[in-house]
Amino acid sequence: MRTAVAAGVDVCFANPGTTELDLVRAIDAVGGIRPVLGLFEGVCSGAADGYARMAGRPAMALLHLGPGVANAGANLHNARKAGTPMLVVVGDHATSHRGLGAPLESDVETIARGLSDSVRTSASAAGVGADAAAALAAGGVSTLIVPADCAWGEAPGDAPGPPPPAAPRAPADDAAVAAAERALADPGGAVLLLGGEALGERGVRAAGRIAAATGCTVLSETFPARLERGGGLPAPARLPYFPEQATAAIACHAALVLAGARTPVAFFKYPEVPSEIAPPGTPVLTLPAPVEALEALATRLGAPDAGAAPAPPAPPAPGPLTPASLVAALAWRQPEGAIVVDEGLTVSELYVAASGGAPRHTYLALTGGAIGQGPPTAVGAAVACPERPVLLLQADGSAMYTLQALWTMAHERLDVTTVVCANRAYRILEAELQRAGVTEAPAAARAFTRLDDPAPDWVALSSGMGVPAVRVTTAEDLGGELDRALAEPGPHLVEAVLA
Amino acid sequence: MRTAVAAGVDVCFANPGTTELDLVRAIDAVGGIRPVLGLFEGVCSGAADGYARMAGRPAMALLHLGPGVANAGANLHNARKAGTPMLVVVGDHATSHRGLGAPLESDVETIARGLSDSVRTSASAAGVGADAAAALAAGGVSTLIVPADCAWGEAPGDAPGPPPPAAPRAPADDAAVAAAERALADPGGAVLLLGGEALGERGVRAAGRIAAATGCTVLSETFPARLERGGGLPAPARLPYFPEQATAAIACHAALVLAGARTPVAFFKYPEVPSEIAPPGTPVLTLPAPVEALEALATRLGAPDAGAAPAPPAPPAPGPLTPASLVAALAWRQPEGAIVVDEGLTVSELYVAASGGAPRHTYLALTGGAIGQGPPTAVGAAVACPERPVLLLQADGSAMYTLQALWTMAHERLDVTTVVCANRAYRILEAELQRAGVTEAPAAARAFTRLDDPAPDWVALSSGMGVPAVRVTTAEDLGGELDRALAEPGPHLVEAVLA
Repeated sequence: MRTAVAAGVDVCFANPGTTELDLVRAIDAVGGIRPVLGLFEGVCSGAADGYARMAGRPAMALLHLGPGVANAGANLHNARKAGTPMLVVVGDHATSHRGLGAPLESDVETIARGLSDSVRTSASAAGVGADAAAALAAGGVSTLIVPADCAWGEAPGDAPGPPPPAAPRAPADDAAVAAAERALADPGGAVLLLGGEALGERGVRAAGRIAAATGCTVLSETFPARLERGGGLPAPARLPYFPEQATAAIACHAALVLAGARTPVAFFKYPEVPSEIAPPGTPVLTLPAPVEALEALATRLGAPDAGAAPAPPAPPAPGPLTPASLVAALAWRQPEGAIVVDEGLTVSELYVAASGGAPRHTYLALTGGAIGQGPPTAVGAAVACPERPVLLLQADGSAMYTLQALWTMAHERLDVTTVVCANRAYRILEAELQRAGVTEAPAAARAFTRLDDPAPDWVALSSGMGVPAVRVTTAEDLGGELDRALAEPGPHLVEAVLA
Repeated sequence: MRTAVAAGVDVCFANPGTTELDLVRAIDAVGGIRPVLGLFEGVCSGAADGYARMAGRPAMALLHLGPGVANAGANLHNARKAGTPMLVVVGDHATSHRGLGAPLESDVETIARGLSDSVRTSASAAGVGADAAAALAAGGVSTLIVPADCAWGEAPGDAPGPPPPAAPRAPADDAAVAAAERALADPGGAVLLLGGEALGERGVRAAGRIAAATGCTVLSETFPARLERGGGLPAPARLPYFPEQATAAIACHAALVLAGARTPVAFFKYPEVPSEIAPPGTPVLTLPAPVEALEALATRLGAPDAGAAPAPPAPPAPGPLTPASLVAALAWRQPEGAIVVDEGLTVSELYVAASGGAPRHTYLALTGGAIGQGPPTAVGAAVACPERPVLLLQADGSAMYTLQALWTMAHERLDVTTVVCANRAYRILEAELQRAGVTEAPAAARAFTRLDDPAPDWVALSSGMGVPAVRVTTAEDLGGELDRALAEPGPHLVEAVLA
């Protein structure tokens, strides 16, 4: 714990059990780490992800043996896809207790290996500090398994040294910048695809200037870990979700320039549809050190000081809520400085399109496709930034995966306003069935895609977790309730029932 | 799907995604498999466990890629510890789509290997049938990963043959029975520890007769997968949870005879407390073919026709609910033929002691210590046995892990009566802290063990899932509400707030 504190870890999201109690006592003994309880481990891992995306430093997620790692797993997966650093600490049985078949014995290492970027297991109490330092230095989702005897044993009392300084940022690669300049000058036009750190304020500004100078198309990756938007920042369009549309967005351009983004691939493979999004033969260029490269490129191009700013959001069409009016109401009312956590799934694309001209905000997407990321990530973002309002745009089927996060919002009095988009279906699966030519879903397909018998009552569920909630069915009422929720500190939930 | 149906699989608990849609369409095309939706994969795996414990044959759990396996993982763990057979089918990306870094790409095999008894991955559509047959033949929690192209491709049309007949049951081992007879005749007395299949009606009856003939102490393992009880059946006492008490229950006996039970070990290791429960030097005998062996032993001993029947349950002490009056109310009111699913944790031992003389019932425990097993297992048991009432004795902190199961109870109109024991704490951790000498828990320890700020409102949570619910605070009201809930078909929940 002293090693973690020295490395800047100041919060621990946990649902510990007996094998972690000595680690919990160490948190008390060492001090400097804020304990935040999640009522399910998926809340803890998702919150640690949201925390690190906003704070820029890892949180600790403290988990209970193999089942705890499994419970945390979906959001560990999302965190890995976001490139989030996280120190995952897992208690295990005492070394001498392994192999005896105790009920909670499991292959913790294998489970953790499938869900982490790296895994270490401490062999002695004396080694735990060095193991923690190595886990933190490894970066990514880094798991340290601490057997109970290593937790209750005595460790040497030396204070850990400060962690090694971060490596200096690499400069732009001149050759790559020059090649990108040539590609952007091609009369066939180019797509500049932003991802990762290029979606911060510097990258987005530079890309907007480049677009103003060259007329290139700027897109953002579909599911960014963190994107700075609004308040007059240029707003790159989102690379579409379905592969045909994504390919169409890149086709008819002479080149694809990647700035912080990976080579785009389809979310899912479909028969007869290629995995690769870029049309065959499209030249693909990659900009190392993408933020520095974009700024160098803008300078070389003699680009104007600022790119085009998107228009402010339009008010929503009044009347019964549609996906379009729901996201319009949100974009129209969202306050300055909001952190928008988006697990809206089938409404996400509409929200992104509607909100580029909203007040300045930070946007956090579902990065790994494992649903149940939104509520925990909102918890973590709110813990990291108590002075900023958090808006959670949340699909109902996905909200059900980690609704326990609402309790932590209530317990910690977090300023999170959750909008549950209640279409009472796994709409994305209905869309997929339609893609596959199934117009009238047969029994099993219907059984597995409908959530309306009974429709979950999100007002009751939220109230049961201690978060005040209301239900709305019109855009006007959604706007009014958003205003009320945003004006009042602490968590709120609005169930927005789609017509 | 045809292979699964031919092998007797008739229900699929699932929360499928895009990569499973062709498998869902196959369920529709083949017929014979009932689709049951869980709103979180941990519900699906726990329900498949409960189903198989009651039906005696495996259900299918259909899961979505690596995150789906992780979400199902805690109850896969519990199912493995219960020895439950389960066919876990996991969709994965199409073979050609792997390795490209799609958002949902993960190491499904490694995750599944950490959480299953065996794992297979299909290489072609033509092989899926044989792979499913092999997975079913392997027994235990058996996972078959089906890449999307193997699901959407054409498979040969031959109907699968019937699965090979089950191996005949082994007869009793005469030498082991004779050795056990000598041990039981020792004037120092012996403990007969029942587990596994020896906790069925035949084993329990034979053990009761043996106790009547020899005066030996009969115990059941602490967390049985399935135990037949009540209605005049002999009721073995439960091996205590904490190692000191468990060791005391075996000490002062000349031998320990294991019938279907594993060598007992401590649930958790503590400093200075041995992992092994039996005192050093205690002779330990194992009875192969335990049911047949117990019956042979009773015959050799010339045991009476029936062992001692426990006394009927006593009515609960009136007034504010205590753990003792809560379980007494339950034991006193439970109806003939109930299936009692017990994830009561700190009240479980009291319930087992109070209910041995209740009407005939089947008892299903939390086998692997991974909390969140109760509500899903109750779902599966109710699907398997629609004619039997299911009573779920459920700790509140654990209920929170898989509360989504309530929705499936409502959706499927299952006759499950849930009693949430609301102590609003992780009481077991408070007990562990006290064991460790912590009388006044410091900040982090308190933060991670208290659920009372806010107290989850189980009436609201249950209603939000579509299950009617009431709150009671006295034993009288609990009894009355249990009667009402049991008299009415469909699911109910009673939040029993402990004083």
